[in-house]
Amino acid sequence: MAFELLCDPSIDGAETALQLEMAGILSRASGARGMVAGQALDLESVGTELDHAALQAMHQLKTGALISASVELGALSGGPIDSAQRNALLAFSHAIGLGFQIRDDILDVEGSTAVLGKQQGSDQEQQKPTYTSMLGMQGAHDAANQALEQALESIAPFGDSAATLRELANFMISRES
Amino acid sequence: MAFELLCDPSIDGAETALQLEMAGILSRASGARGMVAGQALDLESVGTELDHAALQAMHQLKTGALISASVELGALSGGPIDSAQRNALLAFSHAIGLGFQIRDDILDVEGSTAVLGKQQGSDQEQQKPTYTSMLGMQGAHDAANQALEQALESIAPFGDSAATLRELANFMISRES
Repeated sequence: MAFELLCDPSIDGAETALQLEMAGILSRASGARGMVAGQALDLESVGTELDHAALQAMHQLKTGALISASVELGALSGGPIDSAQRNALLAFSHAIGLGFQIRDDILDVEGSTAVLGKQQGSDQEQQKPTYTSMLGMQGAHDAANQALEQALESIAPFGDSAATLRELANFMISRES
Repeated sequence: MAFELLCDPSIDGAETALQLEMAGILSRASGARGMVAGQALDLESVGTELDHAALQAMHQLKTGALISASVELGALSGGPIDSAQRNALLAFSHAIGLGFQIRDDILDVEGSTAVLGKQQGSDQEQQKPTYTSMLGMQGAHDAANQALEQALESIAPFGDSAATLRELANFMISRES
């Protein structure tokens, strides 16, 4: 459906080249160099021990790539952006993607099944490598807060116009489900 | 991967508007008004009785839409086509899609599991509506041959340049696996 929308030639004020660029961003983020690769690495990692860098790389592809694409596509929808702005948004999206994942691992241990919407402890049972198993609970909380700080810092140059992104970052990293 | 290719701005001689049109065709054929809708109808139909028209409509979405898109995208890759050519190719793709599916149902009854690559009789066991259960074995063979004739007739105007499409139609409807 996202591709259908992006490729729709009848969108008001749509520019063909920009639409194609946006569809390309979405395709790369969701494909074999994005989410698909991350999902493959995730399945391969069950029962194995990943180090911190490998765990981060896997999540960067599995959920991070589409989060980054969402941020980039949102920005492009608002008009042209320069490379400094693009890099700032990319850094922001990496940080919230990382924070989102760490929070996910924390909730898998601390959260209640009713609130989570999936079985609490399900990642642990499947012997998936997690941030909490790697960093400990306190270490994971610290890492989530650090990711939030990085996210906020990277969009500081946008000032008040980034208020919604700030809310989003705060929500993703403090969410209870 | 298909979307990545279609949206690649660095393809030799690529035209942005044509690329966007092609990505749009693929997105509609695979999405909620194409393959996804057909798959949903197929799952809903397990254990129920579809009439001939409903069965055909389901397959037209589930496999037919992507077959049609493949034919159309192939044609567009070769340069602009007029609406008469487009309609001829659309009729061709509908016919081979239908023939492909009827053949699939025949093989599910007649074929050996070793050649098929899936369990022979698996559709019957799942109580999926099929062309053989609806038309009988002889009726299904007749319908497959009729689909082949329709396919060949619709591309007759292209003459020799459609030799490969003719081979394709013959293969799809006479295949053993």
